[in-house]
Amino acid sequence: MRQSELFGKTLREDPKDEVAINARLLLRGGFVYKTMAGAYDYLPLGLRVLENINRVIREEMNAIGGQELLLTAIQPKERWMRSNRWDTLAEIMYQFKDHSGRDVGLAATHEEAIAEIATQTILSYKDLPLAVYQIQAKYRDEPRAKSGLIRGREFLMKDLYSFHRTEEDLDRFYTQADQAYRKIFTRLGLEFFVTEASGGTFTKQFTHEYQVLSEAGEDHTIHCPQCRYAQNQEITTMRIGTKCPQCGKGTIAAAKSIEIGNIFKLGTKFSQAFGLRYADERGEPQFVVMGSYGIGPGRLMGTLVELSHDERGIIWPEAAAPFRVHLVEVKSALPKVRMEAEKLYKTLLAKGVAVLYDDRDERAAGEKFADADLIGIPWRVVVSERSLAKKGFEVKRRTEAQGTVMGADRFLKLLKGK
Amino acid sequence: MRQSELFGKTLREDPKDEVAINARLLLRGGFVYKTMAGAYDYLPLGLRVLENINRVIREEMNAIGGQELLLTAIQPKERWMRSNRWDTLAEIMYQFKDHSGRDVGLAATHEEAIAEIATQTILSYKDLPLAVYQIQAKYRDEPRAKSGLIRGREFLMKDLYSFHRTEEDLDRFYTQADQAYRKIFTRLGLEFFVTEASGGTFTKQFTHEYQVLSEAGEDHTIHCPQCRYAQNQEITTMRIGTKCPQCGKGTIAAAKSIEIGNIFKLGTKFSQAFGLRYADERGEPQFVVMGSYGIGPGRLMGTLVELSHDERGIIWPEAAAPFRVHLVEVKSALPKVRMEAEKLYKTLLAKGVAVLYDDRDERAAGEKFADADLIGIPWRVVVSERSLAKKGFEVKRRTEAQGTVMGADRFLKLLKGK
Repeated sequence: MRQSELFGKTLREDPKDEVAINARLLLRGGFVYKTMAGAYDYLPLGLRVLENINRVIREEMNAIGGQELLLTAIQPKERWMRSNRWDTLAEIMYQFKDHSGRDVGLAATHEEAIAEIATQTILSYKDLPLAVYQIQAKYRDEPRAKSGLIRGREFLMKDLYSFHRTEEDLDRFYTQADQAYRKIFTRLGLEFFVTEASGGTFTKQFTHEYQVLSEAGEDHTIHCPQCRYAQNQEITTMRIGTKCPQCGKGTIAAAKSIEIGNIFKLGTKFSQAFGLRYADERGEPQFVVMGSYGIGPGRLMGTLVELSHDERGIIWPEAAAPFRVHLVEVKSALPKVRMEAEKLYKTLLAKGVAVLYDDRDERAAGEKFADADLIGIPWRVVVSERSLAKKGFEVKRRTEAQGTVMGADRFLKLLKGK
Repeated sequence: MRQSELFGKTLREDPKDEVAINARLLLRGGFVYKTMAGAYDYLPLGLRVLENINRVIREEMNAIGGQELLLTAIQPKERWMRSNRWDTLAEIMYQFKDHSGRDVGLAATHEEAIAEIATQTILSYKDLPLAVYQIQAKYRDEPRAKSGLIRGREFLMKDLYSFHRTEEDLDRFYTQADQAYRKIFTRLGLEFFVTEASGGTFTKQFTHEYQVLSEAGEDHTIHCPQCRYAQNQEITTMRIGTKCPQCGKGTIAAAKSIEIGNIFKLGTKFSQAFGLRYADERGEPQFVVMGSYGIGPGRLMGTLVELSHDERGIIWPEAAAPFRVHLVEVKSALPKVRMEAEKLYKTLLAKGVAVLYDDRDERAAGEKFADADLIGIPWRVVVSERSLAKKGFEVKRRTEAQGTVMGADRFLKLLKGK
């Protein structure tokens, strides 16, 4: 894509009303726009990152048999009364009357919806197990929404729901889902802790959270840095500064952390509320056992920025980056510079490399380099009089201080990991 | 995909509270679930159709330079006050207070949002023209929502917005967008009329609507069946039963029709409301000229069903069908039937053919055929004792009464159009 045609501009100055680093950098980089606290629009650059994250999530959800669907946000009060959550979630749920006077709400989560729908789909033990998921907007009227993309009032959620005959079969799938979650976070380059946590309003059983250490977090993970054993602060039995009870070597530490995912065993809570039963081999009705598995793709995007940036801007991991290569043409009176930049742009496109081409006429070199650092694409390639005098292009990773001049062939090999 | 594992079951009986054919067939086929009037959930089969429609739309929007983004549904009242539409849209807009007492609304359209965002992105004439689009959920509190997927309270919309220096440049792009819309509808197999219509709350200029004739429609298109000239009933100067003023041959008719798309010239209405200006070559500020272009992918899905079905079920066009082939295995005591069905399933998958494989044990042949007709996948392939005795599989298009027995090679050639 030509940067001269991109919808979305970098901003020189920090936005005034943002404290979170992720929001400041994403706003300045032209990735998002803030419609109100906790509600961000994804501009083309930001949507590319989001879709990359979504692709990783979809691949791993499909790999464990997840079937994608898309549920509505707007829902009638009656549905939420069946699980008793119209009242228990009232503090964070947007609830209002439509023009006919009917009570409706915006879903903060979809256990109710999916349990109701499943009563039409799950009849016999032969229909189980099943797993379905969606990537869809959720709504929570958060009193504090100061963490940028990490805590939203309108935010995207990948929520997967699984259905089983028995607790044992739920356990089997829960382990698979845990492995899938670890793959997702690993593919995105995140170092995470898996913590036991309380199930909150959902279940009396313990659940698991995936946490990454970050000053921007709102959680605290009590953990052993050595063996990576961790517990949520609310349920921990470990004391800070003592030896780790698991490995006996590390010293227990507390750190602020961001929850990047969670998995719950719901048991039969929602099956009972909605009469979700299957007929077993003897034809006897049994309640379906359910699980619930959440990841916020927008929150992941914010988390990646919190964990991977420097004073100049974002440093995207390859898996999430909006483009793989940022091709920067330094303005010159010599037509050869433009010509070589255009040629390299076309070569990269022909090779299927996602490239943002800074072809803007009016910008000085320093300004273009500052924009490239802010946007944070993994590879920067500069075409300039200087680089051409050295018979090539200056290639620099976002993480490197110094670039190296090389020809197109060598750069393409580098991109292929050779 | 194996039908035994599909989330979503066909229903034998018509849902009680649906009058629209599209809703009845889509509900019975397991494509959608009804959460409330005007709010439908897309089950895996339905989401596959929707994504096929979205793919066609995206390809044509990208081809005219559209950049995809994703805007929020929830928005503050203040934004809508600037265009004066908080009040003029109040009848159909969900408007409510959040827990802090702030007035917010769910966007029924996004001219306000995009004009506000564009003030950050469009500064100079060099930034123009631009076109951005999204495929995103819109909310309208429709008093009557009885048309299934054709009129929703929560519904998906592809909305594209374009930005220009002059009316002339808008005209140029408007023609391109018109061509792109014609391509989209043609690729989906829809015969449409393009009608002039009044711009409603948007503009005093005429706009264009794309209409398909259907008893399920809520519009009336005054048209000439011969030359396909058409006008919206609200602005028409043509009288039913008279000679067509365009071709002089056809006789003007009125018919019920469904609006499947519309394109608007917005002029500077929203640019003025939001102070969206660009600096021209002399540095003088000028208001940006805007256009707006809408298609509802869910409505398109409902329209396809209205226009293409028979008494047994849906007849999907290839471009929208959830799968290309419905492979039906007729239960048999001979292991060879299962073996050959499995083998054909794997062959089709290996060739990249999207196939739904009815491997359900408990269903009788008649029931499976009825399901296949209801779901409406273009090609049905039956593997049975009878077909194997004739050395092949019974291949039948959804539109054909009789099938033909043939081997896998001949079927694959047929699929390739040979």
